Amino acid sequence: MLIKKNVKRLLLYRLCLVKFREMGFKRVYSYNLGHEAGVSAEQIRKDFSHFKITGNKKGGYDIESVLEKLNYIFRKNELQKVIIVGMGNIGRALSHYECGFTVRRQYIVAGFDIDPVKIKKTYNVPVYDMRSMDEYIRTNNIQVAIMAVPSISAQEVCTILVDAGIKGIMNFSPVLLQVPENVIVNNINLCDELEIVIYTAVNSNSINEAMIDNLTRD
Amino acid sequence: MLIKKNVKRLLLYRLCLVKFREMGFKRVYSYNLGHEAGVSAEQIRKDFSHFKITGNKKGGYDIESVLEKLNYIFRKNELQKVIIVGMGNIGRALSHYECGFTVRRQYIVAGFDIDPVKIKKTYNVPVYDMRSMDEYIRTNNIQVAIMAVPSISAQEVCTILVDAGIKGIMNFSPVLLQVPENVIVNNINLCDELEIVIYTAVNSNSINEAMIDNLTRD
Repeated sequence: MLIKKNVKRLLLYRLCLVKFREMGFKRVYSYNLGHEAGVSAEQIRKDFSHFKITGNKKGGYDIESVLEKLNYIFRKNELQKVIIVGMGNIGRALSHYECGFTVRRQYIVAGFDIDPVKIKKTYNVPVYDMRSMDEYIRTNNIQVAIMAVPSISAQEVCTILVDAGIKGIMNFSPVLLQVPENVIVNNINLCDELEIVIYTAVNSNSINEAMIDNLTRD
Repeated sequence: MLIKKNVKRLLLYRLCLVKFREMGFKRVYSYNLGHEAGVSAEQIRKDFSHFKITGNKKGGYDIESVLEKLNYIFRKNELQKVIIVGMGNIGRALSHYECGFTVRRQYIVAGFDIDPVKIKKTYNVPVYDMRSMDEYIRTNNIQVAIMAVPSISAQEVCTILVDAGIKGIMNFSPVLLQVPENVIVNNINLCDELEIVIYTAVNSNSINEAMIDNLTRD
C-alpha cells in the first residue's frame, strides 16, 4: 500500500501552522501557508477541501480552528499502541525521542530484541524476547511497528510482524521489504537522506539556477 | 534551496538495484526497476538519461554498470566531512548508525553539545563544546551538518551553522528553519513519519481501493 501524499502534506501544514501561531498570527491565507510549506496555494486549498477544512476567501483560514481539525483527523492515531523491534541505537533513541511520540500520545508500549543483555534492561519501555513478539502483537492487538533491525534479518522480522497482524511498519533498515498489499511500509533511509543533503550542498555551486529550477519542478 | 526529487529517486533506484543483484540478476528492464521502486518505467528512463546512464532497449540495463555509475555520481559525497550538533539520543545513534554513514565513507568527524557531561565523553566521535563549533567548521571547511537539538534552540543553532559556512543541514528538530537560498535543509520529522504510518494503517480498512488509488495519484 502506498503512502498518501496529501496526508504527508497535511502534517507539513500542521508544522507550518504551529510556527505561524507561535509568531503571533491568528489567520493565514493559502498563499502564506503555501509559501512556507513549499507548495502552491491551489494545492493547499485542494488538500484542505479534500479533508473538509474550510476557510473564507476574504479572511483566509483561522489557524486555531484548522489545527483543531487536523488534530481531529489524526485523533485515532493517539489510541494506537506501537512496538519497536530492535533495541539498538536507533531503537533506543526512538523510545524516548524528543519531539514526543508520547507527547502526541502515540504510545510506544514495548521493545523487542534477540540480545539477552538488552532484554534484561528496561530503557524507556520494557524490552522482551523477540520469540514472544508474535503472541504480544496478537494479545494486545498491535497494528503498528517500528523496525530498526540489521538489514540481514529485516525481511524475516517483517514477515513475523505481518503474520501476527501488523498493518503499518516504519522501517529503518535500508532494505525494501516484501509485504502484502494491505500493509503500509514507510522506509526511512537515514543514509540516503544524508547523501541527498551532501550531494545537493556540494554540487550546488556548479549547477546554475535554471537547472536547479528545472530539476525541482519534477 | 529545494531537494531535487530526481536525486532522491536515484538513491531509491540504487537500493532496488542492490536488491536485484543480491537476488542474482545481472540485468533489469526499466519496467522491472519501476515496479520495485514504485515509479513508471518512463520516469526511470528519464532520470537515467538525465544523469547520462544508458541501457539498450533489447537488453535493459546492466545492474553492475548502473551501480558503478551511481557511485560515480555520488563519489564527491565520500570526501565530505560531516558534524553532528546535539549529542542526545538521536545524535548518538547517528554517530554509529548501522547501515553505515562510514561504510559509504561519509565521515562524521565530530559532535557538538552544550552539556559539559556529554562534552567530556567520547562516543563514536569526539564531542566538543558548541562554543568552539564556529571555529571548527571554518578551520576544517565543513559544509554539512546533522542537527539533532531541542526545538527551542534549533533556529539559533542553525544560524550559527550557516554563518560559519554550512551549506547543507539534515534537521531532526520538528521546526521549519529559516536559511538563505543557497543552503539546503532536509527535514526528517520522525514523529510525522510515524503518524503517516499509523493513519494509513488504521484508516485503510474504511477506505475503498478506488479512493486510495485516487489519493496516491497526486
